[in-house]
Amino acid sequence: MNAKVRLFVDQPLGMGQAVAVGPEQANYLFAVMRLTVGDAVLLFNGRDGEWLGRVQDAAKRRGVLLCEAQTAPQSLPPDLWLLFSPIRKERTNFIVEKAVELGVARVQPVTTRFNNAERWRHDKQLAHAVEAAEQCGATFVPEVADVLPLDRVLASWPPGRALLWADEALAGQSANLHGQIAPATPSAVLVGPEGGFSEEEKARLRALPFVRPISLGPRILRAETAAVAAIVLWQAAVGDWR
Amino acid sequence: MNAKVRLFVDQPLGMGQAVAVGPEQANYLFAVMRLTVGDAVLLFNGRDGEWLGRVQDAAKRRGVLLCEAQTAPQSLPPDLWLLFSPIRKERTNFIVEKAVELGVARVQPVTTRFNNAERWRHDKQLAHAVEAAEQCGATFVPEVADVLPLDRVLASWPPGRALLWADEALAGQSANLHGQIAPATPSAVLVGPEGGFSEEEKARLRALPFVRPISLGPRILRAETAAVAAIVLWQAAVGDWR
Repeated sequence: MNAKVRLFVDQPLGMGQAVAVGPEQANYLFAVMRLTVGDAVLLFNGRDGEWLGRVQDAAKRRGVLLCEAQTAPQSLPPDLWLLFSPIRKERTNFIVEKAVELGVARVQPVTTRFNNAERWRHDKQLAHAVEAAEQCGATFVPEVADVLPLDRVLASWPPGRALLWADEALAGQSANLHGQIAPATPSAVLVGPEGGFSEEEKARLRALPFVRPISLGPRILRAETAAVAAIVLWQAAVGDWR
Repeated sequence: MNAKVRLFVDQPLGMGQAVAVGPEQANYLFAVMRLTVGDAVLLFNGRDGEWLGRVQDAAKRRGVLLCEAQTAPQSLPPDLWLLFSPIRKERTNFIVEKAVELGVARVQPVTTRFNNAERWRHDKQLAHAVEAAEQCGATFVPEVADVLPLDRVLASWPPGRALLWADEALAGQSANLHGQIAPATPSAVLVGPEGGFSEEEKARLRALPFVRPISLGPRILRAETAAVAAIVLWQAAVGDWR
């Protein structure tokens, strides 16, 4: 087997199932990665687990892969959302990539008073999330939502979901979430933009019943570090890293 | 006060102490940041806490700052080392920056069988660590060691220091370190290079009495993600995030 490619496809996977690939994936598989008929590819679609596929037909702009055996069952993403305010391109890419690796169900970029997130390129970030999932062995790709104003996200907050807000005012307090949240609590983490939240935003967050301010240690973390740290703490305390 | 610059200086700080700055820092303070006489600067040196300094003399290639008041006491870095194998430049920069923000006492790059770390630029990474400390409000700068072969680091391992090794073979097991390590245990985390450790290296690590394999969740993390996750888990369980 020794598949050197792991590929997300938006088609059903199952024993003997043929998977047609279009021009872009054919170019990647057969031109860039130089796979030929008989070569192995790992496939996942976010629903049917991971499958070993084999190249049956390899043409310049299309191809067919045949599912031979399931190599991993479908696993569900831990029920955690990441809310963050997109920053410079390189750091935004980083946040999306890390959220996929560490494991979240949904990435929700938000605009805030001090960050209008003009630079959010939704199509690019979707592709980026798929690539990260291909790389890290996940059988799911987190939902990557389009950017929304934080106010609007908070106004339609789903009942029962805890929102862990990385509140800089708590710097220095305990960051350990162990025993602090019930396992299987649907959750989200919210990290602020460079420049932080406005006083108005902070007051609103503090007043909301589903918001729980958390500390991320004694130092000031950059936005992307805060995002990663908050996800790790949640994962280890109540997520799929337990 | 409202200091817009936070600066690491390698000179004593104390009430009324004058701090001379050389050509490089003078250029940064007076040309780039456009500070003039009377402007405030935050200063730290890794020993005397953080001080509010005021520009007393601002010339093209030199200047003098006067310490006015201590703004934070000296805090010690948590006794954690990070051992990692330098990877591509951008991701190595990232690891050093995050180690400083999250808090470690020492960054120790290591060469391994599958990574000869030719790209480690020690002078650049030292400067990078100082910059990260200036940015995150730490009063210390972690020691950034020059690259050494992993074998040699293991051969001269200090007694009593635990080495938490991010072992991919434990993927899926619990990653929660809460209650697993005694507080105040001097520790280090070791994350592997892209391509992982060789079988020989793994066998050696497993046989060493001070090595403790740990899991970082069910997915395969990139080296820089593993470094950040391992530091966060340690910090929350026994470090200065408790």
